[in-house]
Amino acid sequence: MSDSKTGARDLTEKKISSSPLVDGLLLKAFRDEVALPNGKTGIREYIRHPGAVIMFPLFENGDTILIRQFRYPVGKIFWELPAGKLDGPENPEQAARRELVEEIGFFPKRLTSLTEFFPCIGYSNERMILYLAEDMRREKENPDDDEFLEKIRMPIRQAYQMAEEGEIDDMKTLAAILFVKFFLSKR
Amino acid sequence: MSDSKTGARDLTEKKISSSPLVDGLLLKAFRDEVALPNGKTGIREYIRHPGAVIMFPLFENGDTILIRQFRYPVGKIFWELPAGKLDGPENPEQAARRELVEEIGFFPKRLTSLTEFFPCIGYSNERMILYLAEDMRREKENPDDDEFLEKIRMPIRQAYQMAEEGEIDDMKTLAAILFVKFFLSKR
Repeated sequence: MSDSKTGARDLTEKKISSSPLVDGLLLKAFRDEVALPNGKTGIREYIRHPGAVIMFPLFENGDTILIRQFRYPVGKIFWELPAGKLDGPENPEQAARRELVEEIGFFPKRLTSLTEFFPCIGYSNERMILYLAEDMRREKENPDDDEFLEKIRMPIRQAYQMAEEGEIDDMKTLAAILFVKFFLSKR
Repeated sequence: MSDSKTGARDLTEKKISSSPLVDGLLLKAFRDEVALPNGKTGIREYIRHPGAVIMFPLFENGDTILIRQFRYPVGKIFWELPAGKLDGPENPEQAARRELVEEIGFFPKRLTSLTEFFPCIGYSNERMILYLAEDMRREKENPDDDEFLEKIRMPIRQAYQMAEEGEIDDMKTLAAILFVKFFLSKR
């Protein structure tokens, strides 16, 4: 294994066969047999996910909004940026606008795609796009029936500090805030 | 929904019943019926995960090591920090040392736990602890049979830059590098 300087080694695993592992209401998982780089075969199990968006709201006065939300799989309340899954064939910008209205009651007239990342590459194909949301127009929020949340508006410096001091432990929110901090420092 | 200033609202969802949804080789998932804050019931499906560790190797000359690894669920090669799942009853520090030896061939005499975060709170209980790994002793690496990777040693400034410019899109690695950058700037 390694110390390769070239990056030319073939690390790719190739699909041999794929079968549904679970077809849940939320979770769709597959089990694939794959050909490994060494010629052997292996098994890979993973969630198939429609993709997601996460938004950093930036108000003209320098405030942002974080959400507090109970997350059942972990069993605790997290500080989060507004985020959500793509809804079927929805494009990511539509999803970003819809989620912002639903979750915080603001429609962003300006959305800037900053980057994309993958939260869980070991067992999910989820891809998440990060948007900076600006020029916000007030709307009535409209949360999903089974979504219960509190929103807290705060200066962005407070959000930065919460991220840097380990108070934010939702990984997507931590990564997004620290990424946005650097982006805004250069703008 | 909200604009609550108190944080006193009960957002908690309570388990009514739980049943196995899938018992795969890698993936263990459950479907729970839960009582929602509004008195209704809902369904939650999620992966049960043993927990994980991620390590930022820091050499005395200011270098770190990133790994390139193909991730089948997403179908591409990622830049990653060394990381791995807890192996059964293993404690996180043991896991951190084991993974560093396996993946990069160094045993860290000093491990500092910096923070913990949750990669995938919507559908997994995975918890990940971030360690700074220092005072590294050379060992022979010993990768898992079905793990194929390249390791690249580089100055930490190069890793910071890759994270800040969006070149690192594995979310755990992005969050960890940006978090470590802030931590080291204060040390």
